[in-house]
Amino acid sequence: AMAVREQHGHDESMHTCAPPDAVVWPQAVGQVQELAALCYRCRVPMVPFGTGTGLEGGVNAVQGGVCFDLSRMDAIAELSLEDFSVAVEPGVTRKALNSHLRGTGLWFPVGTVGVGAAPGGARGMRVAELGVLGTPVGLGMLGALGVLVVPMGPRVPWSQGCRRGAHGVGVPWPQGTHSPAPCRKRAAGYDLTSLFVGSEGTLGFLTQATLRLHPLPEAVAVTTATFPSVRAAVACTVQVLQAAVPVARIEFLDEVMVGACSRFSGLELPAAATLLLELHGSRHSLAEQQRQAEEIVQLNGGSGLAWAEEPEERGRLWAMRHSAWYAALALRPGCQGYSTDVCVPISRLPDVVVETKQDLQDSGLTGPMVGHVGDGNFHCLLIFDAQDPAEAQRVHTFTQRLGRRALAAGGTCTGEHGVGLGKRALLLEELGQEGLDTLCRIKAALDPHNLMNPGKVL
Amino acid sequence: AMAVREQHGHDESMHTCAPPDAVVWPQAVGQVQELAALCYRCRVPMVPFGTGTGLEGGVNAVQGGVCFDLSRMDAIAELSLEDFSVAVEPGVTRKALNSHLRGTGLWFPVGTVGVGAAPGGARGMRVAELGVLGTPVGLGMLGALGVLVVPMGPRVPWSQGCRRGAHGVGVPWPQGTHSPAPCRKRAAGYDLTSLFVGSEGTLGFLTQATLRLHPLPEAVAVTTATFPSVRAAVACTVQVLQAAVPVARIEFLDEVMVGACSRFSGLELPAAATLLLELHGSRHSLAEQQRQAEEIVQLNGGSGLAWAEEPEERGRLWAMRHSAWYAALALRPGCQGYSTDVCVPISRLPDVVVETKQDLQDSGLTGPMVGHVGDGNFHCLLIFDAQDPAEAQRVHTFTQRLGRRALAAGGTCTGEHGVGLGKRALLLEELGQEGLDTLCRIKAALDPHNLMNPGKVL
Repeated sequence: AMAVREQHGHDESMHTCAPPDAVVWPQAVGQVQELAALCYRCRVPMVPFGTGTGLEGGVNAVQGGVCFDLSRMDAIAELSLEDFSVAVEPGVTRKALNSHLRGTGLWFPVGTVGVGAAPGGARGMRVAELGVLGTPVGLGMLGALGVLVVPMGPRVPWSQGCRRGAHGVGVPWPQGTHSPAPCRKRAAGYDLTSLFVGSEGTLGFLTQATLRLHPLPEAVAVTTATFPSVRAAVACTVQVLQAAVPVARIEFLDEVMVGACSRFSGLELPAAATLLLELHGSRHSLAEQQRQAEEIVQLNGGSGLAWAEEPEERGRLWAMRHSAWYAALALRPGCQGYSTDVCVPISRLPDVVVETKQDLQDSGLTGPMVGHVGDGNFHCLLIFDAQDPAEAQRVHTFTQRLGRRALAAGGTCTGEHGVGLGKRALLLEELGQEGLDTLCRIKAALDPHNLMNPGKVL
Repeated sequence: AMAVREQHGHDESMHTCAPPDAVVWPQAVGQVQELAALCYRCRVPMVPFGTGTGLEGGVNAVQGGVCFDLSRMDAIAELSLEDFSVAVEPGVTRKALNSHLRGTGLWFPVGTVGVGAAPGGARGMRVAELGVLGTPVGLGMLGALGVLVVPMGPRVPWSQGCRRGAHGVGVPWPQGTHSPAPCRKRAAGYDLTSLFVGSEGTLGFLTQATLRLHPLPEAVAVTTATFPSVRAAVACTVQVLQAAVPVARIEFLDEVMVGACSRFSGLELPAAATLLLELHGSRHSLAEQQRQAEEIVQLNGGSGLAWAEEPEERGRLWAMRHSAWYAALALRPGCQGYSTDVCVPISRLPDVVVETKQDLQDSGLTGPMVGHVGDGNFHCLLIFDAQDPAEAQRVHTFTQRLGRRALAAGGTCTGEHGVGLGKRALLLEELGQEGLDTLCRIKAALDPHNLMNPGKVL
């Protein structure tokens, strides 16, 4: 039992394990409601838990209480092909969802048109591949049409996303009934979907998310392009977007990352600033997009691989990217990893990346870079010896400087991973005391006894 | 002065004029802050005012107080071509913004890919053409990247959208400084942008919105297609979306609406269920899209006009749609108009539209229909004699029934126009008492003295 509690007392970050007093595995929204009502009455803290792949200590039970492991809530419901929508419980993985969708002509893509890559939270694509959709941060990237929430208090059930009103005490949705598919626009009262999705479990339990599905593209092509500099690679990205090439994914890897990935995956890519590009379209339009993309790559001094169009070839290229985390860890066997995730305006990205690379070097740190460059979001995968206090301290101060560099460039300290325990100090710098006070007021209004994931975010 | 107050005491709805006690025209965010601080100290209600083209009584000063006419705050700032973003004050129209953008290769489009039409609130495209972007409902459709808000309370300034923290008391942004362009992703604290955008002026003043711009398409083509039935027109829409034809706008007009528009605009369209389709793309890809769209139109028994590709021809077709409101009013000169705006899942749209047409007929009402059919959002433009109490009553009961029909279909009573005064009863039915209580808690947390647009929404 202690082992289970300890396993639920930490994520993949370096924060000290803080085990919950108990772990429960609800299998349906009704069970979440009953357990939450019980905890509420007894004033016991509650911590939602997905797969524990977070990177900022979001699941550590720093005030004890009950961990709600939601991984067994994995129902896929309300699939509507005409509405391009589906409702998923928090334990559903992207892989399971796309298996479920096979043969329907629809899918749940990794990225959205023109915008970076992973819908997942922690570790970029890893959560998208392996994690639960319902992790609070992960959902933020999904563009949920609506969520069902089990909130705090004896009489505050709540639902969102064009669903009919709640019925009964503590029951946000009549159990056993199938709610209709949600509609796409809604101006009826405050929009709370984004509020709850980005709340990292501090405002209530997300028990269901309604996702927008997309038509499967007729054809897909993937390529890598190598550039003489980071600046050239980023300039190329901006021009691709500006030319309205409907690029599905653009990922940036710096020369250290490409080197590590090449070795790890047995590919032979030149160790240089690299873009990984994926295009979707009809067979016909794809050819045109490829021509446009090639032209812009060449204009920026880049040279490209041949296009991979067959699933297997494409899979091989993406497998390289997906293994970036492990490839980085393999640079220094036995060491720990920590991934930063600042996001800045694209126009500032080249400067920020170049300054950050210099800072890495000056700090004597290993930190290959990978980025969802269409969004201005990038990660330094810091690989360091946690047993060496001096190096751990250098990682900490580097991370703080990087966060402040992003803020100074008009960016944010976290584009994907969330605040959790680890970024609370930076959040204060980002929002200011008054901005943070606004968030605290909302928290107090919706969770008056501070029982939901206490000690996180705020 | 009374005339000015009365002019600011109502919108275009039928709600009785409720003039404010005073009208102010702040010209900069600092003036909004000072005036708001003064009102706050004196506990005087505040009502934000755009162009007064709302349809649900959102600006009527039902508790008196000070009307903040924001139309003179019309600065366009922080244009960043690389970031595809611009910051606009509430008085900026879409037309003015696109004039400002001329020659940059970017624009602010009416619709977004695959999704209906007007980003405007009241009266579909009318606000998009004439109104202020900053009207609370209008912004909801814009996908604002961030907003600056002047909230209530002596010490709760607030900013959002990857901006740095607030400075000073009551000052959400250092005056006179240019804030950096926002970034595209952000997981730092609760996401309040959607919350404020959809709040209809009840949570604070929106003094600036950062909008995402889009590359100008190389080529644009518009056509109308005529269908044997409403059901066929809607089925065609779903199939176009499902085939991943990247349609930029799809508007539906029923045979009554087409008849009225044809007469009003001097066009000769068959009086039948009609779709107005706009495609964007490269010259090359456009031809392919046109072929695909034509094929799907034919599969659904539709027949199309030739494609209009030149700006003038295209403008003529859209002018017909843009004049729908006036064309409807011209059906019964001297009468009033009221536009409903329910939104339902697309899969339910054919049934709901057919039932609604039958209801119109049974109620003896004139109500041509027009809809952003890609979203499941449609309007009945009810034209009635306001002097005839029996007819006005029939309009009211029809509207209630339509709202309930949308709710029963899993939709919402308002997809665009908002709640204002007019839809509060339906909002309660939509959210339930507990759902509404959640909104009231947030309102109380952010506006503890209920000074912002009191009496609206909740």
